[in-house]
Amino acid sequence: MAKVLTLGEIMLRLSVGDGVRLADASVLAANYGGAEANVAVSLAQFGHTAAFASVVPENPLGDGAVRHLSRFGVDCSRVLRGGARLGTYYLEEGVGARGSQATYDRAGSSFAAVDACPWDLDELFGDADLLHISGVTPAVSPTWRVIAPAVVRGAVERGVRVSYDVNFRAKLWSWDACMEVFLELLPYISVLSAGIGDVQSALGLERTAWDEGALSDAYTRLFEAAPLLETVYSTCRVVHSSSSNDLTGYLMTRGGALVHSRTHRIEPIVDRVGGGDAFAAGVLHGVLSGWDAQRTIEFGCAAGALKHTVAGDCNRFTAAEVEQFLHSGADVAR
Amino acid sequence: MAKVLTLGEIMLRLSVGDGVRLADASVLAANYGGAEANVAVSLAQFGHTAAFASVVPENPLGDGAVRHLSRFGVDCSRVLRGGARLGTYYLEEGVGARGSQATYDRAGSSFAAVDACPWDLDELFGDADLLHISGVTPAVSPTWRVIAPAVVRGAVERGVRVSYDVNFRAKLWSWDACMEVFLELLPYISVLSAGIGDVQSALGLERTAWDEGALSDAYTRLFEAAPLLETVYSTCRVVHSSSSNDLTGYLMTRGGALVHSRTHRIEPIVDRVGGGDAFAAGVLHGVLSGWDAQRTIEFGCAAGALKHTVAGDCNRFTAAEVEQFLHSGADVAR
Amino acid sequence: MAKVLTLGEIMLRLSVGDGVRLADASVLAANYGGAEANVAVSLAQFGHTAAFASVVPENPLGDGAVRHLSRFGVDCSRVLRGGARLGTYYLEEGVGARGSQATYDRAGSSFAAVDACPWDLDELFGDADLLHISGVTPAVSPTWRVIAPAVVRGAVERGVRVSYDVNFRAKLWSWDACMEVFLELLPYISVLSAGIGDVQSALGLERTAWDEGALSDAYTRLFEAAPLLETVYSTCRVVHSSSSNDLTGYLMTRGGALVHSRTHRIEPIVDRVGGGDAFAAGVLHGVLSGWDAQRTIEFGCAAGALKHTVAGDCNRFTAAEVEQFLHSGADVAR
Amino acid sequence: MAKVLTLGEIMLRLSVGDGVRLADASVLAANYGGAEANVAVSLAQFGHTAAFASVVPENPLGDGAVRHLSRFGVDCSRVLRGGARLGTYYLEEGVGARGSQATYDRAGSSFAAVDACPWDLDELFGDADLLHISGVTPAVSPTWRVIAPAVVRGAVERGVRVSYDVNFRAKLWSWDACMEVFLELLPYISVLSAGIGDVQSALGLERTAWDEGALSDAYTRLFEAAPLLETVYSTCRVVHSSSSNDLTGYLMTRGGALVHSRTHRIEPIVDRVGGGDAFAAGVLHGVLSGWDAQRTIEFGCAAGALKHTVAGDCNRFTAAEVEQFLHSGADVAR
Amino acid sequence: MAKVLTLGEIMLRLSVGDGVRLADASVLAANYGGAEANVAVSLAQFGHTAAFASVVPENPLGDGAVRHLSRFGVDCSRVLRGGARLGTYYLEEGVGARGSQATYDRAGSSFAAVDACPWDLDELFGDADLLHISGVTPAVSPTWRVIAPAVVRGAVERGVRVSYDVNFRAKLWSWDACMEVFLELLPYISVLSAGIGDVQSALGLERTAWDEGALSDAYTRLFEAAPLLETVYSTCRVVHSSSSNDLTGYLMTRGGALVHSRTHRIEPIVDRVGGGDAFAAGVLHGVLSGWDAQRTIEFGCAAGALKHTVAGDCNRFTAAEVEQFLHSGADVAR
Amino acid sequence: MAKVLTLGEIMLRLSVGDGVRLADASVLAANYGGAEANVAVSLAQFGHTAAFASVVPENPLGDGAVRHLSRFGVDCSRVLRGGARLGTYYLEEGVGARGSQATYDRAGSSFAAVDACPWDLDELFGDADLLHISGVTPAVSPTWRVIAPAVVRGAVERGVRVSYDVNFRAKLWSWDACMEVFLELLPYISVLSAGIGDVQSALGLERTAWDEGALSDAYTRLFEAAPLLETVYSTCRVVHSSSSNDLTGYLMTRGGALVHSRTHRIEPIVDRVGGGDAFAAGVLHGVLSGWDAQRTIEFGCAAGALKHTVAGDCNRFTAAEVEQFLHSGADVAR
Repeated sequence: MAKVLTLGEIMLRLSVGDGVRLADASVLAANYGGAEANVAVSLAQFGHTAAFASVVPENPLGDGAVRHLSRFGVDCSRVLRGGARLGTYYLEEGVGARGSQATYDRAGSSFAAVDACPWDLDELFGDADLLHISGVTPAVSPTWRVIAPAVVRGAVERGVRVSYDVNFRAKLWSWDACMEVFLELLPYISVLSAGIGDVQSALGLERTAWDEGALSDAYTRLFEAAPLLETVYSTCRVVHSSSSNDLTGYLMTRGGALVHSRTHRIEPIVDRVGGGDAFAAGVLHGVLSGWDAQRTIEFGCAAGALKHTVAGDCNRFTAAEVEQFLHSGADVAR
Repeated sequence: MAKVLTLGEIMLRLSVGDGVRLADASVLAANYGGAEANVAVSLAQFGHTAAFASVVPENPLGDGAVRHLSRFGVDCSRVLRGGARLGTYYLEEGVGARGSQATYDRAGSSFAAVDACPWDLDELFGDADLLHISGVTPAVSPTWRVIAPAVVRGAVERGVRVSYDVNFRAKLWSWDACMEVFLELLPYISVLSAGIGDVQSALGLERTAWDEGALSDAYTRLFEAAPLLETVYSTCRVVHSSSSNDLTGYLMTRGGALVHSRTHRIEPIVDRVGGGDAFAAGVLHGVLSGWDAQRTIEFGCAAGALKHTVAGDCNRFTAAEVEQFLHSGADVAR
Repeated sequence: MAKVLTLGEIMLRLSVGDGVRLADASVLAANYGGAEANVAVSLAQFGHTAAFASVVPENPLGDGAVRHLSRFGVDCSRVLRGGARLGTYYLEEGVGARGSQATYDRAGSSFAAVDACPWDLDELFGDADLLHISGVTPAVSPTWRVIAPAVVRGAVERGVRVSYDVNFRAKLWSWDACMEVFLELLPYISVLSAGIGDVQSALGLERTAWDEGALSDAYTRLFEAAPLLETVYSTCRVVHSSSSNDLTGYLMTRGGALVHSRTHRIEPIVDRVGGGDAFAAGVLHGVLSGWDAQRTIEFGCAAGALKHTVAGDCNRFTAAEVEQFLHSGADVAR
Repeated sequence: MAKVLTLGEIMLRLSVGDGVRLADASVLAANYGGAEANVAVSLAQFGHTAAFASVVPENPLGDGAVRHLSRFGVDCSRVLRGGARLGTYYLEEGVGARGSQATYDRAGSSFAAVDACPWDLDELFGDADLLHISGVTPAVSPTWRVIAPAVVRGAVERGVRVSYDVNFRAKLWSWDACMEVFLELLPYISVLSAGIGDVQSALGLERTAWDEGALSDAYTRLFEAAPLLETVYSTCRVVHSSSSNDLTGYLMTRGGALVHSRTHRIEPIVDRVGGGDAFAAGVLHGVLSGWDAQRTIEFGCAAGALKHTVAGDCNRFTAAEVEQFLHSGADVAR
Repeated sequence: MAKVLTLGEIMLRLSVGDGVRLADASVLAANYGGAEANVAVSLAQFGHTAAFASVVPENPLGDGAVRHLSRFGVDCSRVLRGGARLGTYYLEEGVGARGSQATYDRAGSSFAAVDACPWDLDELFGDADLLHISGVTPAVSPTWRVIAPAVVRGAVERGVRVSYDVNFRAKLWSWDACMEVFLELLPYISVLSAGIGDVQSALGLERTAWDEGALSDAYTRLFEAAPLLETVYSTCRVVHSSSSNDLTGYLMTRGGALVHSRTHRIEPIVDRVGGGDAFAAGVLHGVLSGWDAQRTIEFGCAAGALKHTVAGDCNRFTAAEVEQFLHSGADVAR
Repeated sequence: MAKVLTLGEIMLRLSVGDGVRLADASVLAANYGGAEANVAVSLAQFGHTAAFASVVPENPLGDGAVRHLSRFGVDCSRVLRGGARLGTYYLEEGVGARGSQATYDRAGSSFAAVDACPWDLDELFGDADLLHISGVTPAVSPTWRVIAPAVVRGAVERGVRVSYDVNFRAKLWSWDACMEVFLELLPYISVLSAGIGDVQSALGLERTAWDEGALSDAYTRLFEAAPLLETVYSTCRVVHSSSSNDLTGYLMTRGGALVHSRTHRIEPIVDRVGGGDAFAAGVLHGVLSGWDAQRTIEFGCAAGALKHTVAGDCNRFTAAEVEQFLHSGADVAR
């Protein structure tokens, strides 16, 4: 089992479901999560040593974030305390043909407001084998636009492999800025979650509709551009409705062919938030376990699909449960 | 934006869902609603000035009805207080192949028990542009069988356009009585919600199975019989189960061809009650906005479909949200 | 209407649903049920006199079990009080492609721990017309392995018809032990719930995949081996997911052809536990009412399907409601 | 153990608690209860055979009432089905210095609307030892004003002892009417719940403030006026607030002195509804058990106090639990 | 009935109760409120025409605030939409000896961030009789430190009486700043809520412990310093615990003696938030109704006490209900 | 900050509150806890390194216990997985004068069923400074009667101080057996929680009623008998009702006088379970911090009182929060 460090912002999600509109809600469900935090939780369930680095306020919501992560065995010794507030967002969960609506209230968070890298890099990495970070982190503030790449370079300098998830968020920054950072980090990345559009844009290829051949071509070109890259992957999600999606995973390893997982029909969807993070963590588990491409993408996509069946941002299934999900039907065991 | 008056009964709905039978329920969800009240709420969300006229008791349930409507911006200055009780019904919501079951307890309500029209008609209408009323109102009591047509005639005499929804309820009166009132009101109606059976029966046409051609024929004949009629519309609902319906809207304007909306798959259904009222209000919004037939029926049917995704009798979406629902998928906006 | 006695264990089910994992649950839903108890409740709703015989502890959970059964009109005068504990199990309900997971905690229950048949058989049967028992009962403990057959033989000796449900539970005993008991009881059984595998195994026939012809053959052979057998039945369940199943019933009477019910699409599934017991009770209602094979299996399968739409182990529908479910769609009655 | 019949109306109570106003409630708690129904439940818990006679509609609310009573072992074979509706009332539970507010909606109930005694009296009483009825029953309708006394006389004619609870309800009838019925029934009553005001008014004595001596005098005079009277009792309740009451019971048997129970401080009050019925049932248990006055009133008042600690109209404590409550403190048993 | 305008910030309160710590909460109750908004709601219940002026974001939380106020009949036509966010705070409600803890997250709200008075003053006041504002408003931001006094002066210039509540909040600004504004506004105030410390500090009197005589002296001096002042009032709250308080109101009118209300024991406390606003609104109702000092303070303090018995920031009792609370005990009316 | 190891059983508590009887419960609240586990959680909140040693099953309930402890920062590396089941108990929480009732179902638990000490003692203790264990542990099974003293001796042999809580549980073993173990362990104990009866019995002193002088005498004698003893303490709890208790702490250090804390009125009580463990942990915090007797007992008793204000077995307050509770009133901080 590996030692993994993930770094990013953790937020409080306040959500309503069950056919209630946010403006009419009298109760809100509270969940803590963030792209990198969710990956740490998944990896801890899979048996890895997972640490999370972040900054949260010295108040009950900061406590809540730390307790959430500790509950699932994540090492929180790199979660610093300070600053003004925990980033928050409100989610009106969609149902059927009505989509979910997010109302963000994350400006000025303790994480976003740091004015320099708050960790000594040697202490930050310790004896980690791999750093996982997503594109949300450099997008959070101009300061993080600088810190995030420095952390990535620092990882490679210390022999720590880097896993990156492009994870574009239009409400945080521009597509061009996201691509600029992606390109800047590309030389350092070993494991990458990037969709066809991310790759085509970043490499200056012609943008095409999604197509398995085009994805294969784009990934093939990417390996040429990224010297450390070992594995690149993404999902193809078909959104039938807020309550029903199909999810298929695609993955290519250096020198290998593009492989894909079986397609999971996810219906009903209990909670979609964190599905991509669960998928990324599943792929990382395969990579860290030295599995082949096919086994890795099957596991990753199953982990991602499984996440949609539980409430909350984080996947709380062991590797054995993911395997069982892959190999059994939905009958009752009794 | 127009000034609309709706008039009818508002009731307390006490419902159980989630696989609980009414006889076993230890908690009941309370919602206030009624055909015309629901239309008023929708139109207020769409930006119109909407007033509701009714009679509710001077007790906490009457207060609850008024607060519900006021919350959504409906003018309640014509909601009179008095009488014995608020009409009530209990709803055991269906799930899957099991249908919903309503247990009515509405006899003797404050609204039903009035012995004469409780408003001065000049004050009732004020500067209203349009009156909306449904077939439930004349069905409520013998007195309302007399008052409702008088109100409709009073509207036309004062230059107020009349919108009517045939809305037959077998538990309230007979089909023949419903048709008799429909025919009596037909000369006064500008905007009409009537299904193929309503029209064929009322005009003495041969009853046929539902068919787009037959609907078109029936509507065409209707315009001949109804001198003020501008717009007639209805939905075709395919009930796959209590949890899954298809909804398509049909509409004809004087001199135009029958048009239909795209078909909405509604699955899962959160709450079907009020879906027809939301549809009617959506069509009225198009009519009041001067939209063409196609745009009107698309908006109306989308409003009706959207209602099924929220709990409670009334639609609580703005016109912009209905438009967004029509034009976007169910993906998360973030 | 008949007088029916069912005998078996009743347990406390503690379940979580709605996308929560058992390890994370802060609230658990409590339901009482057991194969034979559930059949008694169904038969009482269908208008029969139903008594249940069992042993539960003299504590609040024993009280809860008795109150549950009494609520639905089951005669509990044969429910003895004593012993250490009520058998318990925890159910993490599946959703979508994720299956349900049961965590059993039933060892040492008051029922399992009896050291001899705790009733005088004459008093136990009284004036009963039919005894219903399932394969769970002899599986519960070595003592019950002896008591259960003695009770079955005692029934036949007193002119009480026997209904048996093979109901194999892999977590309780071995397949071979289950088959051994089945064969031992076969000469006494009048009404039998047994799947194709049960019959092929018990009779030493070649095991085949499920197939209507093979089922017909197996059932035909069974009538030769079971002198008292009048009716044998089973379901074919297609598990699309934890939230969607297809259910079809099959039934053969002595000398008749295999008949099958219409197939019910059950979606969404509210609670699958007890679906088989509701089906068995539905078939028993047909048998006790003297209905023909087709009417019996249609009623039985509808009862089984309907159970999936309510929470809790037991069916709480009258015979009239089952008939209505068979013959009507899912539209709202209003 | 005795055989007791109680007769009266059972209603659906819909209540809000926890600082919510009824007009703002989105969920209501549903409980079934009524003075005589509650007494039947208590007596069944104390080990007596208790039957309840009433009329409820043939709908899910009627089912709910019957299931509620059956759950607690009450014989419902005399609960007739028919009529229009179940009587209902809404309760906004008070808290602290704010009192509870009841909104009644009970007119026209199945029970109230009977036009003649719906049972054959011989069948109604069967082998009952005692009839319990309250002053609510003759108050329900003019018809019941006639039926109730006829039932009481019928009881005495058949050797069935009569227990009566004056139970004046100002929202149902006038004080004078209540007193008139009380006087009319007085010759037939063996066990009576009547306060000082009831007795002074009915006997034409001077009305005084509550005082133990005055109560003793009034009760003494009552025994002279009521030839069959064996036991008369009442409580003195000191209302500190909606959340805190003191309760003391007073009782006199023919020829004995007035005795009183210890005073129970009830704080907090979970649910006051049915407290008086639990008290009456407790006294009846003492009377039916042949206990002396002191033991009877202690048990009765403890039963009444205990009721305030559980939600719902009916007491669900065994006689042993009431005794334990009387004799132990509130420490945890572990 | 008067026309009242209140102006201030409205926030979203997210609270946990029932013995749950905020860091452990998985659900939060959502309520909208603010000092001036709460006063507007109370006055609307008392029958006055109440308008609220504020700025909230154009998002679902802004919608929620407006719907909350509209529900209770407050005129929201002066609630502007825009800016970044709705101010928020988290409340861990105390219980027993443990106090409540507030975690504020209100910086940068739409209201606080305005850069100039967002209303034309003539339009803002319209035909209002009285403006109510509290010391929270000038404390919200440096801009509001300027706007608030300008609005107050603008009121007086237009013949609108001014009601001011000093309402010091240590988490928003300094005591000195609060006193500075108080003094600056004093010449314009007609009705004032100010405690003994507020008055002694502002007037440069010696600070003393609370004492009825000292309060009378301070108020007497205040009338000399405030030419328009008609009424000054405050409460004395004795905090036994988070669950039990005593509340007494004190009030002086120009030329009159200090009067006090009866003392209300409030136990248990459902929700203390908004208790002071309910008290202020109660006093304003007396002032606007022309009541004498004694009647006014009794009504005000009763309104304040009553507020503690309901959840949510705002009082939802009519004037008749407040009177009934004053004059009746807590017995059930039935 | 110290390194503390606690060792014992952790169980699942399933409880009902709010006026519901266990037999009628449809939902149960799930909490994990145990005397030593609760102490570990408290000490972790106070800033110590706290490890817990136990045995739980390899199933979701075992996972739940570990996640609960991890959430609060307890080191679970000594929690072994295996065995049949997690011990369980059901708690019907008392209210007012009605006491709580526990229904135990803990026989045969994974912890109780070990057949030898499951840890190597060197690895178990590691670098711990102090071992805390309670009298529940040797009571759990005959095996633990042997293991527990061996662990205690092993601690002292390795220089680890021992803290013991007599914690007699009548439902687990006899008083004599409890005293026998207490005496056997006495020579090894440094910090002791023992009531007056424990000490008088164990030392063969005359049993007296509780009295501060008698307690002082008993404690004084105890120091003579226990060579390593540094600190002995206990509470005096006055049970007014299930909802209201008074709690006072008493403590004596070697050579010092008996000191007592201030008395805490705890009203209302949210959850009493774990109050004694919180008190013990509070005293241990004082001892481990080197505080004097008075400061230690004040802190300990405040910690114990504070626990009663939160749901769940474990205290979740920091040392700073306990201090604040001691020194401030219950007013809202805002």
